[in-house]
Amino acid sequence: MSDHFKQSPPFHPGMTVGILGAGQLGRMLALAGYPLGLRFRFFDLAPDAPASHLAAQMVADYNDYAALERFATGLDVVTYEFENVPVAAARWLAERVPVYPPPQALEAAQDRLAEKTFFRKLGIPTPPFAAVNSLADLQAAVASISLPAVLKTRRGGYDGKGQFLLREPADLEAAWTALGGVPLILEGFVAFDRELSIIAVRDRDGGIMAYPLVENHHREGILRLSLAPIPPPLQHGRVGQGSNRQIWDGGATLEVDAIGYVAQAMQALNYVGVLAIELFEVGGKLLANEMAPRVHNSGHWTIEGAVTSQFENHLRAILGLPLGATTALGHSAMLNIIGTLPDPAAVLSVSGAHLHLYGKQARANRKLGHITLCAADPETLARRLARLQRLITDFPQQ
Amino acid sequence: MSDHFKQSPPFHPGMTVGILGAGQLGRMLALAGYPLGLRFRFFDLAPDAPASHLAAQMVADYNDYAALERFATGLDVVTYEFENVPVAAARWLAERVPVYPPPQALEAAQDRLAEKTFFRKLGIPTPPFAAVNSLADLQAAVASISLPAVLKTRRGGYDGKGQFLLREPADLEAAWTALGGVPLILEGFVAFDRELSIIAVRDRDGGIMAYPLVENHHREGILRLSLAPIPPPLQHGRVGQGSNRQIWDGGATLEVDAIGYVAQAMQALNYVGVLAIELFEVGGKLLANEMAPRVHNSGHWTIEGAVTSQFENHLRAILGLPLGATTALGHSAMLNIIGTLPDPAAVLSVSGAHLHLYGKQARANRKLGHITLCAADPETLARRLARLQRLITDFPQQ
Repeated sequence: MSDHFKQSPPFHPGMTVGILGAGQLGRMLALAGYPLGLRFRFFDLAPDAPASHLAAQMVADYNDYAALERFATGLDVVTYEFENVPVAAARWLAERVPVYPPPQALEAAQDRLAEKTFFRKLGIPTPPFAAVNSLADLQAAVASISLPAVLKTRRGGYDGKGQFLLREPADLEAAWTALGGVPLILEGFVAFDRELSIIAVRDRDGGIMAYPLVENHHREGILRLSLAPIPPPLQHGRVGQGSNRQIWDGGATLEVDAIGYVAQAMQALNYVGVLAIELFEVGGKLLANEMAPRVHNSGHWTIEGAVTSQFENHLRAILGLPLGATTALGHSAMLNIIGTLPDPAAVLSVSGAHLHLYGKQARANRKLGHITLCAADPETLARRLARLQRLITDFPQQ
Repeated sequence: MSDHFKQSPPFHPGMTVGILGAGQLGRMLALAGYPLGLRFRFFDLAPDAPASHLAAQMVADYNDYAALERFATGLDVVTYEFENVPVAAARWLAERVPVYPPPQALEAAQDRLAEKTFFRKLGIPTPPFAAVNSLADLQAAVASISLPAVLKTRRGGYDGKGQFLLREPADLEAAWTALGGVPLILEGFVAFDRELSIIAVRDRDGGIMAYPLVENHHREGILRLSLAPIPPPLQHGRVGQGSNRQIWDGGATLEVDAIGYVAQAMQALNYVGVLAIELFEVGGKLLANEMAPRVHNSGHWTIEGAVTSQFENHLRAILGLPLGATTALGHSAMLNIIGTLPDPAAVLSVSGAHLHLYGKQARANRKLGHITLCAADPETLARRLARLQRLITDFPQQ
């Protein structure tokens, strides 16, 4: 099952980590890794990428093997911050340098059908789904899954792109016209109570640690707000009514399920590093939506909100260092800064607010940064969140 | 009184900060500043300096004005991480770019006589001192201050270098032979209960925030261990017996005094940024030993141990951003890694330990990194500290 052709060297300060993708996730990995004495080299087609401000970046395409060869020379380990790295490139690198997480995790995560099939095989509950390669397939899938349902491209597509919501039979042809021609998947539409995510990290010896379960709020398919640890479902008024859990156990029941799922997935992939699984909560049960074989936007709160950040733990895992505690320090919120920058001075004047800008030019729907907001208790967090909310354009109403 | 010939621009992400000195303090400033969207450029004579791993560095001498000119071009603000930057270079830069802290702070801190005179003028208590420019001066100073006393060079000298302890009259000539020829200062030897430091930050509008008082342990003139907030004096057995404070007030009395002193010093200098004052505690009273017009080794614990680190607050101050809370998150220890690197994996396996390596080659008495150790209460901190203590060569016995 192992993808690791190259043996992993023992950790020593001064090791150079190669990262495929030089976006904000790579940037935050480097910021977490410099204190461990590490050096970084990035690979990304986009020049002036966020990570290039603080480390060397090679500007090249993932299919340029001469460039990959130069990139790999002298690296001690390679990882990625972008799950659409071509699997062939990752495997080619893995013959030369240890690559974590294993390329097979990329493969499983890049195709929604493979991903859901992988979950199902492990007994991890998912929404109903079916492969769609023709209009006839689509009609059969709708008959079996029933409407509403969501037609999605199997590959590519993120932040809500490449999706079509089918509400009634008349929508089928429009959906097929919009997306057909590439492999598709139909998924049953889930009227979820809320969206959650579980982020865990697995070390090279198979040891696993999980962060507290996170509650996520999306709009237009883009993550806007994460809350960790998850608040009680009834706090929000609109969620949890379907649940029969009258007494809030702090999310422990959900967390046990979620940790079980992510641990199973990591074990099956012989995973090393941070893995995130996005989940739907429906009537007190969890359904796995998708996984990301990398550090995850819903884990950014861990920089200030947990004993060890997801970024540092990802590096510790791939370098064979002991994992750090994933315990939350109080209660945290993570607010994405999308499209427009709020006044930095106003943000920083909110107690417990930590600003993280990615060094990008502002552009509609672009993730420009995030704010971690920390507080000792949920009431203080809510008060501070209300202050921040007024500063951020398009902040979701709770 | 102002040194600022150039008006300070309002903050915007993407500003470039120039830093004189590219050692570990500069490195940690950059790590704190990237999340604010800042860019960095360093100036240091030593190639491959710790900060050069994560930002551009100009390798040149501080007296090379052509290099300083190139360095200054395009910078939005300049600061320093090294207090022996020539004042003339800082003033020259201040005519071209806003420089914080003001060069007059450098001037006051570079000369031990000017520094102690500055403290005395403000009513900040110091050990007795006198200028020494001849053997006759030294004899007169010893007669007035009495022995034991410490003869020091007025300039240069750090980590205990350039000092001579005079125990008896016979030591005078040896001391004069060892250090004479440059301007000197004789200081009364202080049989202190313990060494403390106060670190505070002042913004461009004169607003001041102080971190909790820190207890410091030196050996061979080099800081080894800091504890924050300061523990009760009796906890260590060997200190505080001279104190008549039977009930420990959490250091509040000492802290009020210390904050008063640092605030006075900052106001007098029209200071902007982080300032540290090293203090002696003697019988429940404080004496100012010296000040550092920069982020300080005894403040490294603030990276994980305080809401906002000294590095981020220094940048916020010089950029005109609101200061962040200086509150401690529980109890912290900072252990310097001197000369020899402990096993990183063993360090990281201690709960609450955070490793900070500076990317330097190991060498005797060299500061290679530090460890921040955090805990919710002093008992847990002490237990974890005992574990770390066994991993670090030359760790001071408590």
